[in-house]
Amino acid sequence: MPAISKKGIQMPESPIRKLVPYAEDAKKRGIKVFHLNIGQPDIKTPQVALDAVKNNTIETLAYARSEGSEEYRAKLANYYIDNNINVSANNIVITTGGSEALLFTIGSITDPGDEIIIPEPFYANYNGFSTASGVTVVPVISTIENNFALPKIEDFEKLITKKTKAILICNPGNPTGYLYSKEEIEKLKQIVLKHDLFLIADEVYREFTYDGLQHTSVMSLEGLEQNAIVIDSVSKRYSMCGARIGCIVSKNDTFIKTAIKFAQARLSPPTYALIASEAALDTPKSYFEEVKAEYVERRNTLIAELEKIEGVKVATPKGAFYCVVQLPVKDTDVFAQWLLEDFNNNDETIMVAPASGFYSTPGEGKNQVRIAYVLHKKDLIRSVEILKFALDKYNS
Amino acid sequence: MPAISKKGIQMPESPIRKLVPYAEDAKKRGIKVFHLNIGQPDIKTPQVALDAVKNNTIETLAYARSEGSEEYRAKLANYYIDNNINVSANNIVITTGGSEALLFTIGSITDPGDEIIIPEPFYANYNGFSTASGVTVVPVISTIENNFALPKIEDFEKLITKKTKAILICNPGNPTGYLYSKEEIEKLKQIVLKHDLFLIADEVYREFTYDGLQHTSVMSLEGLEQNAIVIDSVSKRYSMCGARIGCIVSKNDTFIKTAIKFAQARLSPPTYALIASEAALDTPKSYFEEVKAEYVERRNTLIAELEKIEGVKVATPKGAFYCVVQLPVKDTDVFAQWLLEDFNNNDETIMVAPASGFYSTPGEGKNQVRIAYVLHKKDLIRSVEILKFALDKYNS
Ligand SMILES: Cc1ncc(COP(=O)(O)O)c(C=O)c1O
Ligand SMILES: Cc1ncc(COP(=O)(O)O)c(C=O)c1O
Repeated sequence: MPAISKKGIQMPESPIRKLVPYAEDAKKRGIKVFHLNIGQPDIKTPQVALDAVKNNTIETLAYARSEGSEEYRAKLANYYIDNNINVSANNIVITTGGSEALLFTIGSITDPGDEIIIPEPFYANYNGFSTASGVTVVPVISTIENNFALPKIEDFEKLITKKTKAILICNPGNPTGYLYSKEEIEKLKQIVLKHDLFLIADEVYREFTYDGLQHTSVMSLEGLEQNAIVIDSVSKRYSMCGARIGCIVSKNDTFIKTAIKFAQARLSPPTYALIASEAALDTPKSYFEEVKAEYVERRNTLIAELEKIEGVKVATPKGAFYCVVQLPVKDTDVFAQWLLEDFNNNDETIMVAPASGFYSTPGEGKNQVRIAYVLHKKDLIRSVEILKFALDKYNS
Repeated sequence: MPAISKKGIQMPESPIRKLVPYAEDAKKRGIKVFHLNIGQPDIKTPQVALDAVKNNTIETLAYARSEGSEEYRAKLANYYIDNNINVSANNIVITTGGSEALLFTIGSITDPGDEIIIPEPFYANYNGFSTASGVTVVPVISTIENNFALPKIEDFEKLITKKTKAILICNPGNPTGYLYSKEEIEKLKQIVLKHDLFLIADEVYREFTYDGLQHTSVMSLEGLEQNAIVIDSVSKRYSMCGARIGCIVSKNDTFIKTAIKFAQARLSPPTYALIASEAALDTPKSYFEEVKAEYVERRNTLIAELEKIEGVKVATPKGAFYCVVQLPVKDTDVFAQWLLEDFNNNDETIMVAPASGFYSTPGEGKNQVRIAYVLHKKDLIRSVEILKFALDKYNS
């Protein structure tokens, strides 16, 4: 029998996926499971995007231009300009989700054996895309005690080798909910300029910032034009995760030309999704205001409820819709499975994402989980209540 | 300025892409360009697929399951069973086009430095996906004199090394239009079993076979269960290239599990396209009969007209909708550009794909072009007339 590749063996399984069979099993036993584990918002997609697809007049569903049409990229450039990111259509490559934007970016700037430094905990699939490209993720640890702020410059510099090609940040952060300040982005600028690295910022949660804080894009810093790369996506912004449209933004022409070659090989982004995404740019401002108000309320509720539980520590998120929660248990992989397999409260339980999957340093995050506040307020309250009962039982 | 990766530099540009600016320029000068260069059919997408999307009732456009829903894969398994390919939902991974199916397959079975043997000329993007994975394409030459039949077993065996992981065929072939016989597939079976290799068959043109010939899938051969991998797509079958849905089919469970890990990293195939693709499975048989009749007529017209031109040689295609044509010119890259830049007949010209892009052996295919017969009969007749005038002028 022919063998699978080493790379294929190393490809990580989704940290949440392992728990899916247990959740399905629980449901079969009549248990209601509250899903705090996924980044799939329950928010409605803007009507203008849904309608554009319903009213399409396509007769032959043809390939779109590999890097996205001139029109869409030009319209998208206007969106960026409205967000203090001064770019034109030529600085944008349309991709099949932020996922593909990450894949093309890593492919364009790294060869097998190269390294990318990423503050951990980080979005678990950074591991997958790195592994697929034969690239090593070098984690720099940020801590819950520090609310997951940017690690010290020295911590980065200790890790930089000849093989380091980039620093990758997620801002606002999944799973941390941390929003980097302008000063922190400036610090990163100094490091990448000094060491001639790319600075990749995954800004798919750009709109989701709270408490009046402003998002600072790496694209908005002067002098960083050749180094800054933004990863973006319509998935979270317009609650249209299933569309699969994202993009790469950069003023580095050589990089953009290279990314386009990757885009050409796979021919085209999905055409229906392009229609939805282009229309979504006309989403009224009120939509975002409502969504943001909704998330702020959910966040406030969740954090307030969590803080009532003894032994629970949570880093208050300033953006995105996740938080990392430290629990008074030894191993959240075991605990998360136990929640689905052996526990229920009035036939209800919760599914959480063990945080170990968001770290690449072995042993880190063992007593943490990620909670996504993508549920209604009353379900969040009930979920935390369940968590409290569960911890009581588990620890006794 | 930070550097692009070696891989990024090596990524091939699409062989057709180079000509696009010349075609755009010609159009600006008022010249009508007949596009014989692309595999984008003008055939209408089945109404049932278009309607399913128009009538969708989605409110939150959510992620789909990474490997595709149980329902869609089960329905797709029935399609395969109808085509003498005895598989179940578990043997299928839904991908974002055949393109992604190729990428995941290569990632699952090769590591950087590994080799894949491919009969050339071959679909140009095999180069792109191989380069993206750090894999070397080892070409085995098939010739126009032989109508692009399978090269001899010895020719394959001479090329097999410790690094060889798979043989990749395209059946029916793009760009050759060649349809492998059952005997040829049996020969490939012997080679891959003997050398413990995967046999990847890109069967995206499965339905497009002519002259009463039957398609033989690598999945239909007994004893090849652990070795055979099929790449498939809705793009050509239902003339819905812009959907971006394809799949991987294999009975090798370890391979399928590995491919699913790649699928999980990119989260989800495009949801609207899934709706269209699932509905497309209910396309009436009459649709395919009409489409096939149309292509047969186009092919017959094209070949008959081409054969009238002195010095032109063409391998009669038995499948797909392409043919490779040998022209009495030295370098078709130069000629194809000249057609757009310096030639017109009554303000009309043609765009063809120089065949060198379909070969990886340097210098091969220099006097060949690929013609896609995706235009109406009368446009094909006019196109060949233009070609004749052009050759006369070019060679005088
Ligand atoms: C931080 C981050 N980046 C990228 C993605 C990829 O999203 P998509 O491919 O849907 O754009 C996600 C999805 O959850 C994410 O959380
Ligand atoms: C032989 C072959 N394989 C694969 C593909 C990829 O098609 P898609 O990604 O649209 O499924 C094509 C497209 O032209 C092709 O000709």
